[in-house]
Amino acid sequence: MEKKYDLAIIGGGPAGYVAAERAGAKGLKVVLFEKKELGGVCLNEGCMPTKTLLYSAKLYDNAKAGNKYGVEAGDLSFSFDKMMARKKKVVKKLVGGVGVKMKQFKVEVMNESAFIKGRTQRGIELAFQGGTIMASNLLICTGSEAFIPPIPGVENNDAIMTNREILALEVQPKELVIIGGGVIGMEFASFFNSLGTKVTIVEMMDEILTGMDVAQSAMLRQMYVKKGIDFNLSSRVTKVEGTSVTFEKDGQSQIIQGDKVLMSVGRKPVTTGFGLEILGVELHNGGIKVDEKMRTNIPNVYAAGDVTGFSLLAHTASREGEVVVNNLTGGNDQMRYNAIPGVVYTNPELSGVGLTEEAAKAKGIEVKVAQLPMAYAGRFIAENEGGSGMCKLLVGAKYGEVLGVHMLGNPSSEMIYGACMAIENEMTLKEMEQVVFPHPTVSEIFRETIFSFSH
Amino acid sequence: MEKKYDLAIIGGGPAGYVAAERAGAKGLKVVLFEKKELGGVCLNEGCMPTKTLLYSAKLYDNAKAGNKYGVEAGDLSFSFDKMMARKKKVVKKLVGGVGVKMKQFKVEVMNESAFIKGRTQRGIELAFQGGTIMASNLLICTGSEAFIPPIPGVENNDAIMTNREILALEVQPKELVIIGGGVIGMEFASFFNSLGTKVTIVEMMDEILTGMDVAQSAMLRQMYVKKGIDFNLSSRVTKVEGTSVTFEKDGQSQIIQGDKVLMSVGRKPVTTGFGLEILGVELHNGGIKVDEKMRTNIPNVYAAGDVTGFSLLAHTASREGEVVVNNLTGGNDQMRYNAIPGVVYTNPELSGVGLTEEAAKAKGIEVKVAQLPMAYAGRFIAENEGGSGMCKLLVGAKYGEVLGVHMLGNPSSEMIYGACMAIENEMTLKEMEQVVFPHPTVSEIFRETIFSFSH
Repeated sequence: MEKKYDLAIIGGGPAGYVAAERAGAKGLKVVLFEKKELGGVCLNEGCMPTKTLLYSAKLYDNAKAGNKYGVEAGDLSFSFDKMMARKKKVVKKLVGGVGVKMKQFKVEVMNESAFIKGRTQRGIELAFQGGTIMASNLLICTGSEAFIPPIPGVENNDAIMTNREILALEVQPKELVIIGGGVIGMEFASFFNSLGTKVTIVEMMDEILTGMDVAQSAMLRQMYVKKGIDFNLSSRVTKVEGTSVTFEKDGQSQIIQGDKVLMSVGRKPVTTGFGLEILGVELHNGGIKVDEKMRTNIPNVYAAGDVTGFSLLAHTASREGEVVVNNLTGGNDQMRYNAIPGVVYTNPELSGVGLTEEAAKAKGIEVKVAQLPMAYAGRFIAENEGGSGMCKLLVGAKYGEVLGVHMLGNPSSEMIYGACMAIENEMTLKEMEQVVFPHPTVSEIFRETIFSFSH
Repeated sequence: MEKKYDLAIIGGGPAGYVAAERAGAKGLKVVLFEKKELGGVCLNEGCMPTKTLLYSAKLYDNAKAGNKYGVEAGDLSFSFDKMMARKKKVVKKLVGGVGVKMKQFKVEVMNESAFIKGRTQRGIELAFQGGTIMASNLLICTGSEAFIPPIPGVENNDAIMTNREILALEVQPKELVIIGGGVIGMEFASFFNSLGTKVTIVEMMDEILTGMDVAQSAMLRQMYVKKGIDFNLSSRVTKVEGTSVTFEKDGQSQIIQGDKVLMSVGRKPVTTGFGLEILGVELHNGGIKVDEKMRTNIPNVYAAGDVTGFSLLAHTASREGEVVVNNLTGGNDQMRYNAIPGVVYTNPELSGVGLTEEAAKAKGIEVKVAQLPMAYAGRFIAENEGGSGMCKLLVGAKYGEVLGVHMLGNPSSEMIYGACMAIENEMTLKEMEQVVFPHPTVSEIFRETIFSFSH
């Protein structure tokens, strides 16, 4: 007789493995299908390997700048091979860690593709190499893949890399052209710029990092201009021949050439190849359409993570997976998207959560805005000789509730979660003023910006 | 005619200058007396210079360990002189910054000693070199000084340094004996250990860092044992001769010798020398006795910061100063001490806020405790090759409200304020589970530890 599960999950990325863990912890009988490695794109070809490499680059940056702080690294060098090898080791360790958690919470992991056979009164049937299983509930977490735009010369062009190929490079490129100055593009730009690769970015919009605070994105771009990156904004790529990239800017056609080209213009949901169409699951904008409980239009069928095509962030995916599990286990939980942080792990880091000024204006939400240079936090001065940064805060015009926080400067990635808490809990300036921040820390900039509203 | 102020403040440290800034911002007429430099001990001889030096040391540590991450600093060295010179420069910049703020908020700064003459119906009269002023309200922020215990051979011993003298060293000691393994002792121990000084700590208690989580303090101590620091716990210093320190441990007398000795066994409030006795202000445990609104027993006379002898932390001082100002300007604010963070800026950092397990037990508060190794956060693994750390969470046994958070690992100093927010707002595990933390960050360890309660 075929095995029956409370919950079958297709895809072992941040949506799938976190949902599996939480569901297992709550006693559900769970099976998780992952055809590649546990951890998904995030662990294997995204967040984790890039952050590992970026930390190596940051150490190299810091050692280069050591003399400002009394540290002399006379004969400084780096090994691209060692950095890449360590990245591989870290990924392996993290993937292993997910596996251990799956065992700990009695999740059955199937290292193969699953295919949806159909839905009957007994549940949803999935087929895999060598058998079928039944599940009372199905959670689809098949993620996303790099979007390759239909530009002439891009298809079947081996010189063009996505996040996957660039992370498997064996030789550091001398000149790298990056098409798309979003988070992925900027993080690779930062890494290779630190190592001395000549980086050129071609971005269609008039600023990099769409969705982040525009002024801070511009500040960050200026910092990288000083570090030697060439930016071509408002530039539309019209053709790629080998590693030669043609783009139009202000009506003029230009050509740049690198020894490698990274395509990072976006990602698209993976909705085919596993029988989704058999269930009649409704799509929206190319992703699976879900409600605030992550339910699809088909009963007992849920989707979470990039496959919904909505937020495309690992931590959104994990939380969405949790929402599904909480509702399956007697809770009443729903997804909100107003307090999802975004982090760009450049050096310095750019982090934000909630409304931007641009979004507030577009949505007609009345806000008050305050901002302070990071140097208002003493520790920032102590740790950033000659460095600059900014903290911007948006609050509701009427009640002063925190609606958005945006920070350029290290280590904003580790500080921003407190801003998420403030927004999630609808905390007001008055309430935030009661919180004691440790001194001296960079995090105090948040507190100082709060107080600057009263001036 | 003598000048009249709404608020006179004696002492320009973190209590005084923050109170002055907030009061000025709210339109009060403020005079601030500071006989030395603005910023007090914290900016000039405490938090800020130590953190500046510790950052230099961390860069040196990181460069030394660079090869683990693919960075080779072949000919690595450091300059003690340059580190000390930069520290001086940073302090000067920060002190200047406080001055600018005082101007911005129209605070009159008097760079001299104030002396309390008396209190009449017209207000409180203060004398200074060349005049007197009247103030409707007086805020006393005279701070603290290093406590020098009455041990034979300590008085008038030029070989013994406090935080002040050690920050003015011109030559790096080869061997440093530190009496007192509290925060100050451990931070200097960390700095000089990084630079290769042989450090020995003599601590009276059976663990370093009294008040912090005991298990994490022990972990931190073990890390420093590996780095070469000698710890003598449960050891009472009985005599000092020159730089030779005699202590008793397990009934045995031992002698250790360094070329310098740091005395860091605590600090005591400064309550004399400015006429406090004239007002009849009541003391308690050597500090000025205050209520939850920082009122002394004398109407219109307030005290904030170390002079209360209570919390002895810069951020407590600032918040206490704010409480005074808020109540003077029509608000109703009071001081709470349940969410005051404590940070030890060693490498790795140790940070905590709220109840410790030890305090919960002593107070008979029923709690549930969960803890996870820092390595449960993927970014910690990416950035701490071979490193370890811990995150511990205490919640109320009945409602699951967050009562204490303790973290050993970088950059916990910048992460702990979110835990302060959770405690200050009495957030429960259920509420914390709704907060989306950015991935991948070390801060996610907080989230993972929250979830580990449900297993």
